[in-house]
Amino acid sequence: MAAPHSESVQQVRIALGDRSYDILIGSGLLAQPAAWDALPVASTALIVTNTTVAPLYAAKLRDALSARYRSVFQVVLPDGEAHKDWQTLNLVFDALLSHGCDRKTVLFALGGGVVGDMTGFAAASYMRGVPFVQVPTTLLAQVDSSVGGKTAINHPLGKNMIGAFYQPARVVCDLDTLATLPQRELSAGLAEVIKYGPIADTGFLDWIEANIDALMRRDRAALAHAVRRSCEIKADVVGQDERESGLRAILNFGHTFGHAIEAGLGYGEWLHGEAVGCGMVMGLQLSRRLGLIDEAFVQRVTTLIARAGLPTVGPALGAERYLELMRVDKKAEAGEIRFVVIERPGQAAVRGAPDALVRQVLADCTR
Amino acid sequence: MAAPHSESVQQVRIALGDRSYDILIGSGLLAQPAAWDALPVASTALIVTNTTVAPLYAAKLRDALSARYRSVFQVVLPDGEAHKDWQTLNLVFDALLSHGCDRKTVLFALGGGVVGDMTGFAAASYMRGVPFVQVPTTLLAQVDSSVGGKTAINHPLGKNMIGAFYQPARVVCDLDTLATLPQRELSAGLAEVIKYGPIADTGFLDWIEANIDALMRRDRAALAHAVRRSCEIKADVVGQDERESGLRAILNFGHTFGHAIEAGLGYGEWLHGEAVGCGMVMGLQLSRRLGLIDEAFVQRVTTLIARAGLPTVGPALGAERYLELMRVDKKAEAGEIRFVVIERPGQAAVRGAPDALVRQVLADCTR
Repeated sequence: MAAPHSESVQQVRIALGDRSYDILIGSGLLAQPAAWDALPVASTALIVTNTTVAPLYAAKLRDALSARYRSVFQVVLPDGEAHKDWQTLNLVFDALLSHGCDRKTVLFALGGGVVGDMTGFAAASYMRGVPFVQVPTTLLAQVDSSVGGKTAINHPLGKNMIGAFYQPARVVCDLDTLATLPQRELSAGLAEVIKYGPIADTGFLDWIEANIDALMRRDRAALAHAVRRSCEIKADVVGQDERESGLRAILNFGHTFGHAIEAGLGYGEWLHGEAVGCGMVMGLQLSRRLGLIDEAFVQRVTTLIARAGLPTVGPALGAERYLELMRVDKKAEAGEIRFVVIERPGQAAVRGAPDALVRQVLADCTR
Repeated sequence: MAAPHSESVQQVRIALGDRSYDILIGSGLLAQPAAWDALPVASTALIVTNTTVAPLYAAKLRDALSARYRSVFQVVLPDGEAHKDWQTLNLVFDALLSHGCDRKTVLFALGGGVVGDMTGFAAASYMRGVPFVQVPTTLLAQVDSSVGGKTAINHPLGKNMIGAFYQPARVVCDLDTLATLPQRELSAGLAEVIKYGPIADTGFLDWIEANIDALMRRDRAALAHAVRRSCEIKADVVGQDERESGLRAILNFGHTFGHAIEAGLGYGEWLHGEAVGCGMVMGLQLSRRLGLIDEAFVQRVTTLIARAGLPTVGPALGAERYLELMRVDKKAEAGEIRFVVIERPGQAAVRGAPDALVRQVLADCTR
């Protein structure tokens, strides 16, 4: 960053060689010129947002960017996971081409995980790659999806099946935007915050337990710490394994079960974070049945998930349907489902599991 | 390569660090086990081809691959530039997902430039990236489009607007496949061969002039040399500038005008190589009007283009329409069209040009 930030702005660096970038975390960042300096030079910027976020924050972002870019265009997508498809993505390409945007144009993803994933994939693909900036406005996007360069759209046969590893030029997390977040989405974001405890940091798990009520009532300092520590852990993992050849997969704890829930119910029925919350309970139960962790730890984390307002029991899709949906998970190899399990509190691994054991877990955790 | 090749197989290396790969050039490669060894290990392969090429060569490739992969699937796309769109690309994703292909699955692009570009983009995007191999069966694909990692689909508002830089694991050019190529497509491929002369190698230009009749009657030795030398020049340029931040753009000589012809007439009306052939004549005329080269060199290359069976006069779309179409070219910046010009025989550069000069060129070169 060229200009100094006020003391309240925190910075987390994602170290990826010439693809390195900073995550800025703080209050009022949308209106802070320093948050937008030193970005790639271009004549044109395109803000990609959705129908929910646009009326709240798009004007503020456009004001901030108009000092830097001669033309600032905007495209407003329909809101929700159900629209994370090619048809909606094409609205971004239509906007880019109809405004004559060139290969230096910078895209800004203003919204939650869906907007971020789609904008990132659009940036990766438009003219074979233009720069983009993540401006996450949901807790889930701030602590997880905006960081690390995973971009994608869904295919009717599987979630996030079409996409790219493509890093943003910067991530700007304005904590003020969390004020307008529906409580259900706050909870969904907390699922990804809680996730970092069992897979990487029991000290952070202790902290979340002690502060879950503060987080639920959106205490600014508690949110700031949760976002920062989550980003630090994610930065550390992604810095070691950008393209998920190994370690990075642990960030998908709860996601194999969770994706099956989302796909089985139809995208958008449960929020992604809700499915992950419930999926973590299943992942914990599987880890226990594999003899890796004890029941007390399972209960401890399950209780925390419940206190975050998240479901801990899955929909009764039937074990066969769950297994079928999980076989198209990206971690699967030659038809074998691979699960993220907790080896011991604070450490995760990726491995297969006998179908019979998975059926038991599903029987226990669904109704 | 682990195994030695027969003497008739030539190898050109694309040096791109951990994305380096070999181009194999020779006769009978489809049936030669050594052409398919040492590729990424996987349980599954998917051959992507089209309705024209499938009946000719798909069975041969499937036989070669079945020694290496447990399951070899196939998807047959409609043939032609008009189908280089999302809808057709999605047929590849449908095939991958319905066959349960995982993130180690290897894709094989068996066909011309359209099949190669689409398969490459599908490989870049499926589960955020799976390996792929180019098996070009047209001269154009063997000398140009299969080499260098440019992948893309078209958008109604512009050619190759959505894609990725994504390198194949190998390129296998079986010269035998050129035997079934329609004469019109042979000519289209020669356009890209001729291109390498004015932009990079006047010695090669001399050789093409001396051998154009042999090339037109598909003399095997002449084709082998043309493919090899073209790949060497392209390998050299791409090795210096993989993502087209500068030098690589010279490979687009004739393409700015050419893309306008293709888009203006509707994709598929003229073959890409035909549009490039005519576009090179326009590019040469522009270079002359800019005072860079003399009329004798323009006439020399124009004559060669005509001897290759290519059009040297463009369709009368009107200058305004040409300019409008060229403004969405990927090389354009802030609305200024950027042309590849010949600075002197054997050397090219990218620069803008006054609209008035471009109009004169269009008036001279269209009817």
